[in-house]
Amino acid sequence: MQLTTHTDYALRLLIYLAISEQKAPATVQEIALSYGISANHIAKVAQTLVQLDYVKSLRGRGGGLVLARQAHTIRIGSVVRETENLKLLECFGPDSSCPIDPACTLKKILGRAQEAFLEELDRHTLADLVTNGGELRQLLA
Amino acid sequence: MQLTTHTDYALRLLIYLAISEQKAPATVQEIALSYGISANHIAKVAQTLVQLDYVKSLRGRGGGLVLARQAHTIRIGSVVRETENLKLLECFGPDSSCPIDPACTLKKILGRAQEAFLEELDRHTLADLVTNGGELRQLLA
Repeated sequence: MQLTTHTDYALRLLIYLAISEQKAPATVQEIALSYGISANHIAKVAQTLVQLDYVKSLRGRGGGLVLARQAHTIRIGSVVRETENLKLLECFGPDSSCPIDPACTLKKILGRAQEAFLEELDRHTLADLVTNGGELRQLLA
Repeated sequence: MQLTTHTDYALRLLIYLAISEQKAPATVQEIALSYGISANHIAKVAQTLVQLDYVKSLRGRGGGLVLARQAHTIRIGSVVRETENLKLLECFGPDSSCPIDPACTLKKILGRAQEAFLEELDRHTLADLVTNGGELRQLLA
């Protein structure tokens, strides 16, 4: 039960933008450097978040990434739903090869458990993750 | 957000034993053949389940695997807790390299969401997964 690096970095990128909202747009390089992670990977994640309309990419001198929506309107469950691979088991995809699939109660129960996971995340917004923004900013400096 | 094949096969093995409780002990080969999966992998999973005291391995002629406890006493959440890698993100392990780790609210929220996932699974026992045992038995035949 692990989340992908893609989702991990997407959440980190959003946290970074949320705590630097008052500042200039953030660059991919600056974010990657702050977290000590790959700029290439952050660039890919940024692309996904722009497509999903969580992030805007401003071009030109002084350009960079900013949040496309206010932090308190971004539900963490929604971000995870849109960035994560939610195929808990092989049978959650279209090509299940498990013979008991048509009558499997486990699959339904696992689906409900996944929904409980996402619902818990839906109780929190990006704004909730940065109420201690000053402290986070120091750790990222 | 994917469960490991180890957990997948552990649950399949337990379901198999639960629906064949009235019959003779089941062999690794028979279980692997029924699901169309690797006997080596099922053997490893069986070993784990014997160590965890969910399954007993009976030796000798007519030997094989049987449940070590009654199906209605085996909570699905417990099985998943004991077989699954629950390190949702790198920071759930001892070697987090994320600079915001000491002040990260996201980590706490993800921990609670994982607990909600497992609690939902704890509502169900192995017996609940095989109330339609006849149907499952036919699919595995």
